[in-house]
Amino acid sequence: MTEDNTTPSQRRGLSRRRMLGLTGTGAAVGAATFAGGLGVGRATADTVPAGGAMRRYPFYAPHQSGIVTPAQDRLHFAAFDVTATTREELVTLLQAWTLAAAEMTQGRPAQAEETSYDAPPADTGEADGLPASGLTLTFGFGPSLFRDAHGKDRFGIAARQPRELAALPHFPGDKLDPSRSDGDLCVQACADDPQVAVHAIRNLSRIAFGSAQIRWAQLGFGRTSSTSTAQATPRNLFGFKDGTANLKAEEAGQADEHVWVGQRDDPAAGWMTGGSYLVARRINMRLETWDRASLREQETIIGRDRPQGAPLSGGTEFTEPDLAAKGRGGVPLIAADSHVRLAHPHTNGGVRMLRRGYNFTDGNDAIGRLDAGLFFLAYVRRPSAQYVPMQMRMARQDAMMEYVQHTGSGLFAIPPGARDGGHIGQTLFA
Amino acid sequence: MTEDNTTPSQRRGLSRRRMLGLTGTGAAVGAATFAGGLGVGRATADTVPAGGAMRRYPFYAPHQSGIVTPAQDRLHFAAFDVTATTREELVTLLQAWTLAAAEMTQGRPAQAEETSYDAPPADTGEADGLPASGLTLTFGFGPSLFRDAHGKDRFGIAARQPRELAALPHFPGDKLDPSRSDGDLCVQACADDPQVAVHAIRNLSRIAFGSAQIRWAQLGFGRTSSTSTAQATPRNLFGFKDGTANLKAEEAGQADEHVWVGQRDDPAAGWMTGGSYLVARRINMRLETWDRASLREQETIIGRDRPQGAPLSGGTEFTEPDLAAKGRGGVPLIAADSHVRLAHPHTNGGVRMLRRGYNFTDGNDAIGRLDAGLFFLAYVRRPSAQYVPMQMRMARQDAMMEYVQHTGSGLFAIPPGARDGGHIGQTLFA
Repeated sequence: MTEDNTTPSQRRGLSRRRMLGLTGTGAAVGAATFAGGLGVGRATADTVPAGGAMRRYPFYAPHQSGIVTPAQDRLHFAAFDVTATTREELVTLLQAWTLAAAEMTQGRPAQAEETSYDAPPADTGEADGLPASGLTLTFGFGPSLFRDAHGKDRFGIAARQPRELAALPHFPGDKLDPSRSDGDLCVQACADDPQVAVHAIRNLSRIAFGSAQIRWAQLGFGRTSSTSTAQATPRNLFGFKDGTANLKAEEAGQADEHVWVGQRDDPAAGWMTGGSYLVARRINMRLETWDRASLREQETIIGRDRPQGAPLSGGTEFTEPDLAAKGRGGVPLIAADSHVRLAHPHTNGGVRMLRRGYNFTDGNDAIGRLDAGLFFLAYVRRPSAQYVPMQMRMARQDAMMEYVQHTGSGLFAIPPGARDGGHIGQTLFA
Repeated sequence: MTEDNTTPSQRRGLSRRRMLGLTGTGAAVGAATFAGGLGVGRATADTVPAGGAMRRYPFYAPHQSGIVTPAQDRLHFAAFDVTATTREELVTLLQAWTLAAAEMTQGRPAQAEETSYDAPPADTGEADGLPASGLTLTFGFGPSLFRDAHGKDRFGIAARQPRELAALPHFPGDKLDPSRSDGDLCVQACADDPQVAVHAIRNLSRIAFGSAQIRWAQLGFGRTSSTSTAQATPRNLFGFKDGTANLKAEEAGQADEHVWVGQRDDPAAGWMTGGSYLVARRINMRLETWDRASLREQETIIGRDRPQGAPLSGGTEFTEPDLAAKGRGGVPLIAADSHVRLAHPHTNGGVRMLRRGYNFTDGNDAIGRLDAGLFFLAYVRRPSAQYVPMQMRMARQDAMMEYVQHTGSGLFAIPPGARDGGHIGQTLFA
């Protein structure tokens, strides 16, 4: 490594140019690897084809990306336990994560500094040559970061714990696995290429070595919600379109009302202004049982038809469900215990959520049933008003509960986006 | 359901037309769901955009697809235990699987018959609206199908067990998990959309209900080999290009020599002519340890440079490694214990394999390390000559063994392709 007086970002720029120079001549690289220094880098806009994979979202922004961002196809979510014991170490980790996230979301290596041939590579390499693929990295803080299991304020932030960042209540039917629940920190990596999402979590985990370690992780292979009117509604593993009525980025004022924390929401936690809260729930689906239910029963439970996703009160997918409509014998067309009715804003005091869930499958159990379902992710301004009452009602009344079981859970405060030159969570630690 | 005198395939054709008629008018479908009969179907070439997702491979062919087929991006692999006790039940399962596979690989529902509104849907639905996405379904038979753990010939086929379908030996360092190994049957589902691959395995598992159940399954999120010269070489989780020297479909005569079973290979198992053998190995990679090795050590272990994948003897990615080349002090440029040298045909009596592996990650262990690696899939004509000696040499000598551990294993006879009107494995049971 040579020393110079350039700034880190200038050096990163230098490395990128070096790398591009090198990769232009394969033979030279083969030889250069014996010579000493070597820049290891990812493809750039100049070297990969245009298209959806070239989507890039800015990392430095007022709100974190990965929330109202059009939902990408794949997910790698990880919750971390912090092993660092001082506030300074924690802030150092958040600073390092911020720099790495700003690089990776632009399709660059996690750490682009020039690497010595006799040191481990700065980036693990499996995303070399892959474009940004729409990668977003969204960071969050769990309740235990503020007060650990013994009530200890490890990092001097307990007084700033948001009121809304309280442990979720136990919901009827919950069968939560502690090894798939909670965590001091979380990172949601979404991308259209799973290798890019996995690469990001792996490198963040590597950067965290000695300060934090993965507590649990979840891969999602297919998005189950649209967050933009430009996206078609995908299907969940019950075979139904999911998220038709989801809050969309294009709906004027809706994100401000339902997603982003406002300046006056919580005087003790003004640092959350422009942030949000993430409710993560691992929902196992009893697919084998569901698959034996008649189409009539399935549609009655959902409250929509399967082919189109139209409400059973009539119309097409985006027709507003008519919860009052009755059919023969005065029976409601949308059943009292149907999912659509119980999830509808009319049933929930007008509140909405921005859902961003993913289908998952993690192999099978001992008797051959798929370990699969929906990894529910929802961003809300007030979990206590927008998630808890609705989930309590669903857990008690939703006919779908017979076919699902919540097996993992987490609630995280999602701070606002980082400023260029700043870091994730800076408003909390400032 | 109405009865008629048409053949099953005529009825399927009818259903397709019905379905297309229905899905053309969303409102009509919404209403039709109350009326009784309903055709549930997938998108067709007419209704989805053209592009890579529209790739479709024929199911009925002399060789099974999913072998020399250009490797798709995603994998869902499942091994099944047969619970059926008679030969007739087993053949019935294979017939049903064949029909469903022929449909799904063309982007159609697993079972396209008209569905009664009061019966479970014929297809589980989560791939409705998705194109074929290059789906291939490749079926295989494990040694235990011929003789179970007690040596019993459950299905009257023991005499036809191929010589090459013998249990693999224990290799040094193996730490095989029985719940991730072996199986009576296997299905490899590859597609460019993971939801399409998962849908296929789920529906085959559903069709097998009462006859076979999933023993273990593995998702792979990114291909690690190219099987066509038209494909760029992808990277494994060590960050290196993998499969540069893989056997490619375009190499004249190579598949016949190294992949497909010949007519005179095994007189007792003539039914395997045109088939192949699949070696499946779940290889965990110790990523955290690897990531702490210097780039020099990593490249020395692999025998190629990381940026380009060029052999350390010089040149570019596709330059033939010069195993005799020596550097300063007479040290071989490609180390004696390097992966490239030990895997090279020169070191292995000229044999080659068609590799088709996938990167996987299945969460993390209790101390936060990623449970990740390479799900190795290789198709060979003679496992005893093409895989066993090479793996024995590698397990003993390969410097990479320090960073990997084999945790699952399976060997399967891959019968030839099914004829239209026939079924998978027909040559075995005829």
